[in-house]
Amino acid sequence: MGFVVAVVGATGAVGREMLATLEKRRFPVSEIVALASPRSAGQKLTFNGKETTIKATTAEAFKGVQIALFSAGASVAREMGPAAAAAGAVVIDNSSAWRQDAQCPLVIPEVNAAAIKDRPRGIIANPNCSTIQMLVALKPLHDAATLRHIIVSTYQATSGKGHAAVEDLLQQARALANGQPVKPTIFPGQMAQNLLCDWKPSAMEGGEGYSEEETKMVFETQKIMGDLTIGVSPTCVRVPVVNAHSESIHARFARPITVEEAKSLLRNAPGVVLDERPYAPGAHPQPIQASGKDEVFVGRIRRDFTDPNALNLWVVGDNLLKGAALNAVQIAERVIAE
Amino acid sequence: MGFVVAVVGATGAVGREMLATLEKRRFPVSEIVALASPRSAGQKLTFNGKETTIKATTAEAFKGVQIALFSAGASVAREMGPAAAAAGAVVIDNSSAWRQDAQCPLVIPEVNAAAIKDRPRGIIANPNCSTIQMLVALKPLHDAATLRHIIVSTYQATSGKGHAAVEDLLQQARALANGQPVKPTIFPGQMAQNLLCDWKPSAMEGGEGYSEEETKMVFETQKIMGDLTIGVSPTCVRVPVVNAHSESIHARFARPITVEEAKSLLRNAPGVVLDERPYAPGAHPQPIQASGKDEVFVGRIRRDFTDPNALNLWVVGDNLLKGAALNAVQIAERVIAE
Repeated sequence: MGFVVAVVGATGAVGREMLATLEKRRFPVSEIVALASPRSAGQKLTFNGKETTIKATTAEAFKGVQIALFSAGASVAREMGPAAAAAGAVVIDNSSAWRQDAQCPLVIPEVNAAAIKDRPRGIIANPNCSTIQMLVALKPLHDAATLRHIIVSTYQATSGKGHAAVEDLLQQARALANGQPVKPTIFPGQMAQNLLCDWKPSAMEGGEGYSEEETKMVFETQKIMGDLTIGVSPTCVRVPVVNAHSESIHARFARPITVEEAKSLLRNAPGVVLDERPYAPGAHPQPIQASGKDEVFVGRIRRDFTDPNALNLWVVGDNLLKGAALNAVQIAERVIAE
Repeated sequence: MGFVVAVVGATGAVGREMLATLEKRRFPVSEIVALASPRSAGQKLTFNGKETTIKATTAEAFKGVQIALFSAGASVAREMGPAAAAAGAVVIDNSSAWRQDAQCPLVIPEVNAAAIKDRPRGIIANPNCSTIQMLVALKPLHDAATLRHIIVSTYQATSGKGHAAVEDLLQQARALANGQPVKPTIFPGQMAQNLLCDWKPSAMEGGEGYSEEETKMVFETQKIMGDLTIGVSPTCVRVPVVNAHSESIHARFARPITVEEAKSLLRNAPGVVLDERPYAPGAHPQPIQASGKDEVFVGRIRRDFTDPNALNLWVVGDNLLKGAALNAVQIAERVIAE
């Protein structure tokens, strides 16, 4: 017994993690349909020990598919998402294409699993990686004390831009190590030993000067939390790290909240590992340690010196796993449990 | 005509920049006295084309010294600062030893130059690198709109920890590039392709969970601005960058302030380069571009979506120059102008 599951964008950084996550979590798959761009069609991959051939992403390819996990970018999702849904699949899309659509739920299972059921288009949107790990950490605090304002600065890994971006970072790092000039291929400049903000401008009204990556965190937070009054002030920065995003978060609530209360709320929170290690150098969540892990790591919870309603937190998570592939598969698990 | 100038810690990362900055700014030096640990005594260095021999830092070494620039750590500064002052020198100390002392002014010339005059101990403290670049950027806005709360997340370069820390980063980067294991020598773990918070715990009352680096930013801001009611919520993070610190700053004021007003205040602010480049990938201040520059680069000024009194800013500066050596020499320039 199992389901016919398509993975669209099967050769990409997130697509590969989707396949690996389906295997690892023993998702009941009767048949895997691996789809990608025509350029990748014909390539083979192995899923659950069986070789399968990658096909091009066409409307016909979704015939018989019950669950379609998309990670192929917004334009493919806009075109092929409805086609897959029309073929009868429940679509779970990792791109930004459907996130703002009022008829598509935007879901983090630990936060708003109930929203999954109401999906008139047959499409469920997977949030942005930066939003997911932030809200997994903040939801238990929001339930207790009601979030009013989030100020977040990200330290985002290069894997969020795909395989080629990681390879760009690594070849730049090799060039610097060998005293050779840096020749960026994906990033708009030197990424190794440097910082670059994502600079695709936001299309959000009044979002002048913000990047799209940043304003995603604003509307996604409000939509997922179901509260348009939560303020979000984001600054998104790409750092020369291979995998796992880190976030420095200042969260202000409607009432006072202590560090101890926050820890007690997060100690057994779903999807969270609370880092309570006593003082020692390096004793805080780090990207190289969170990489490859399913959980969101929360540490360095500190009071605000002048605002009893606010806390500072340091949140690290694997952007390809909980930030993308794992969250999508967790949504799929909820769908098949219906 | 000129002054007898001592540089204490002359072989360190900041000490070398102090010597280079004195030369570059044609500071009137009649004699340079290069001091360091006994281990470095006897080494030669060239200043203004003349070779000089490094001596050990003893009380006697300050005889005849008029200006003593210290960058030798807090314990040397606590012991030798008063000795140098007793010998008649005006001491400008880059360590944290004297920053909290009520009888030692803590000075950023662009911000509170007037404080230099009142120095009963003969010691002027140079602020922490992260504080300096933040306040150079915020002072013009504070004068206009009165700062109430700063939430700052840093992206600090390894050079702030000295030459050996940079070498640690670079050898770690070489090891990773060559597929070899990382063997940290200075950092408490992998720094290349990773993030590490400074984790020397703060001794500040109520500062549980904060690092010393972080609470420095709190009391230094309040002391330099002369306003103990300014709230500061800092998160300090070391990133795998060689030189130049970056800061994501959320500043809230006592009254509404627009992006345009902030830009007009910063356009001709002393020590500031306002980055107003229109949208383009990479068109924002970057550490590799700020490294080696005297100015503090301010860009990405954005409104807060829900708080008209607040702004987000991205501030990048050379931590060895304006963050340390240059600021110290600028203080010395004010001292000799008295």
